[in-house]
Amino acid sequence: MVRFPASCNVFMDEFGRIAHFFAPLASGFSGSLNLRDDAALLAPSAGHELVITKDALSEGVHFLGSESAGLIASKALRTNLSDLAAKGAKPLVYFLALMLPPGTGDAWLEAFCAGLENDQKIFGISLAGGDTISTHGKLSISITAIGEVPLGSMLKRSGAQAGDAIYVSGTLGDSALGLRSLQNGLGMAALEERYLLPQPRTALGLHLRTLAHACMDVSDGLVQDLGHICAASGVGALVHTPNIPLSPEAATQPGALTAALSGGDDYELLFTSPASAHAALEALSAEVGVRISRIGEVVSGSGVRVLDASGDEVKLTSTGYVHR
Amino acid sequence: MVRFPASCNVFMDEFGRIAHFFAPLASGFSGSLNLRDDAALLAPSAGHELVITKDALSEGVHFLGSESAGLIASKALRTNLSDLAAKGAKPLVYFLALMLPPGTGDAWLEAFCAGLENDQKIFGISLAGGDTISTHGKLSISITAIGEVPLGSMLKRSGAQAGDAIYVSGTLGDSALGLRSLQNGLGMAALEERYLLPQPRTALGLHLRTLAHACMDVSDGLVQDLGHICAASGVGALVHTPNIPLSPEAATQPGALTAALSGGDDYELLFTSPASAHAALEALSAEVGVRISRIGEVVSGSGVRVLDASGDEVKLTSTGYVHR
Repeated sequence: MVRFPASCNVFMDEFGRIAHFFAPLASGFSGSLNLRDDAALLAPSAGHELVITKDALSEGVHFLGSESAGLIASKALRTNLSDLAAKGAKPLVYFLALMLPPGTGDAWLEAFCAGLENDQKIFGISLAGGDTISTHGKLSISITAIGEVPLGSMLKRSGAQAGDAIYVSGTLGDSALGLRSLQNGLGMAALEERYLLPQPRTALGLHLRTLAHACMDVSDGLVQDLGHICAASGVGALVHTPNIPLSPEAATQPGALTAALSGGDDYELLFTSPASAHAALEALSAEVGVRISRIGEVVSGSGVRVLDASGDEVKLTSTGYVHR
Repeated sequence: MVRFPASCNVFMDEFGRIAHFFAPLASGFSGSLNLRDDAALLAPSAGHELVITKDALSEGVHFLGSESAGLIASKALRTNLSDLAAKGAKPLVYFLALMLPPGTGDAWLEAFCAGLENDQKIFGISLAGGDTISTHGKLSISITAIGEVPLGSMLKRSGAQAGDAIYVSGTLGDSALGLRSLQNGLGMAALEERYLLPQPRTALGLHLRTLAHACMDVSDGLVQDLGHICAASGVGALVHTPNIPLSPEAATQPGALTAALSGGDDYELLFTSPASAHAALEALSAEVGVRISRIGEVVSGSGVRVLDASGDEVKLTSTGYVHR
C-alpha cells in the first residue's frame, strides 16, 4: 500500500479513494461486490433475522475534533456496535457515509481507515458500502450497522417485568468525567479513554439473549435510559446509589455519582433479568471478563426512583443528584 | 396532528421530534418497533435477498439549499431509490440520518417529513430507523435504503456482453440544464424540475431483471457511468449521438449534447440487453410508460467511444463534446 507522510496533503479523486482506502475494508464480504456496484447484497443466515441500527456523529457535538482520525473512526463504528450488542446481535456488516470538510487530505483518510480496519478485526464486522461526500461544514459520519439474531430472539427495551433485578455492565460515569478532563486539561487518562474509545459489550450481549428480559445500551445516562426501558415495558424502577459501579478513577472525582446517573456516553449494557438468572450472570461475568452489577429492581408502576444508602430518594437538579 | 405555522420556530426535544414527526413514517413497518428501540428488525421474503444502498447529500454540494424542505427530502430519498431501481430491487425500508444546522425549527422538520410521507406512498417504502443530530455546518442527509430481489437476480454493472445493445430510459441532460437554469435564473421550469425531483425508474427496474445483462443508474453522466459498466464487464462500448434521447425542452438549449453525455444527476437507467430482448423492451416501455432508447452497442475491448451521425468520434474537452 502506498503510504503518504502525514504532512502531505495528497488528494485522490472519489473513485481512487474508494479503490485505495475503502475497497480493502470490504474485501472480506463478497456481498460488497468490492464496492464496485451501486448496492450491496445481504441475506441473514438460515433461521436468523437482521438487526439494523444507524447512528450519526458530528464534530464538536459528538466528538471534539482534536482526536486522531483513527479514534474518530473507532468511536463512530463502536457507538453503532454498542447498539447491536444491546440487542444481542452478532455484527455482520456496516455502511459508511463520510461527510468531509474541504481540504481533508488522503493522509487523514488513511488514518481513519486504519482505525476502521483495526476495529473490523476486533469485532468481526466488514464494510459493505457507503458514500464519501464533501460538505461545507464540520466533519460528520453516519454509520448503518447490521447484525443478526436467531428469529424472535432480539433483546428489546420492552419485556422488563416487576420483580426483575436491574443490572449494568462495567462502570458508569467514566466517560462524562473523561470529557470533563479533556475539556479542562485535567489529564485523567483512564477516564479520557472511556470517552474517546467506547467498549461495545458484544460478547456479553450475545449471551444475554437467553438471560435478560429487556436490554439497551447506556448512551444518554443511566436514569434517562432506564426510563426508556420502564416506559417501553410499562413498569417502574428503583435504583440504589450504593450499588452503582464506579471505577477507582471515577470514585475519587467530584460529581462522580451525577456522572454515573446522568452523564451519558457510557456504552454499557443496562438490562433486567429474573432472579433465577443471577447465578448464570455471575458465571457469565467471569467468562466474558466484564463486571456485572445489580443496581436495583423493577417494580410495578412507572418511572425511575433513585434511593441512597438510607433509602431516601435523591433527585437530579441543576447541580447534580441531591436529597429531595 | 398539531400544525405549526411556517413562521413559528418551535423546538421539541429529540424524543418529542421522533414521536411526533418520524414515528408516523415508521408505523407501516412492524420491524421499526415504532422507533422506540435501539435498532430495527428485518428479514427478506422467502427466497429473496436484500439489496442495500447508502447515499449522502449535503447542502450547497448536492442540492442548493433554497429548495423547500419537502423537495430536499424527496431528492435524498429518491437518489437512493434510483440505486435500488437500477439493481431491480423492490423497495422495502430506509434509515435516515439527518444532520441539522443550529436553529432548524419544527416547521421545517414537518415539511421535510411531509415530503418523505408523500414519497413513501408513491414508492411503497417505509421508514425503519435513524438518527437526528445537530451539526456545526450545513444540512446533510444520509439515507440507507433497502430493497429485495429473488436470490441471485440482482442486476449488476458486470454482465454486459459484446453484441449487447445499450439502452437508456427517459431523456438525458435535463437535470444538468435545469441546474444551469436555476443558477442563472433562466426560468426553464420543466428542466429545473428534473434537477429538483428525480424520477426513480422503480417499475422499469423490476422488469429488467429478466431482460438486462447489466444495469446502473446515470448519476455521474452517461459516458462516465457507461465506463463503469464497461470496466466491470471487461468490454467496450460505442454510443451514437443521434440516438441520445433529449427532451423537447433540452433539445433547444446550447450545450444539450454535452449535458446529456456528461451532465449527471439524470437518475435514468442505463442497461445492456441481448438483441433477443428488443421486442420485449418495446412492450415494457409502453407498459410502464417510460421511454427506452437504444443508444449504442457493447463491443469487445475497453472504454467508451462516442460517434456522431457521420461515424466520427467526438471527445469531451473543457468546452464540451467536440470532434476529435
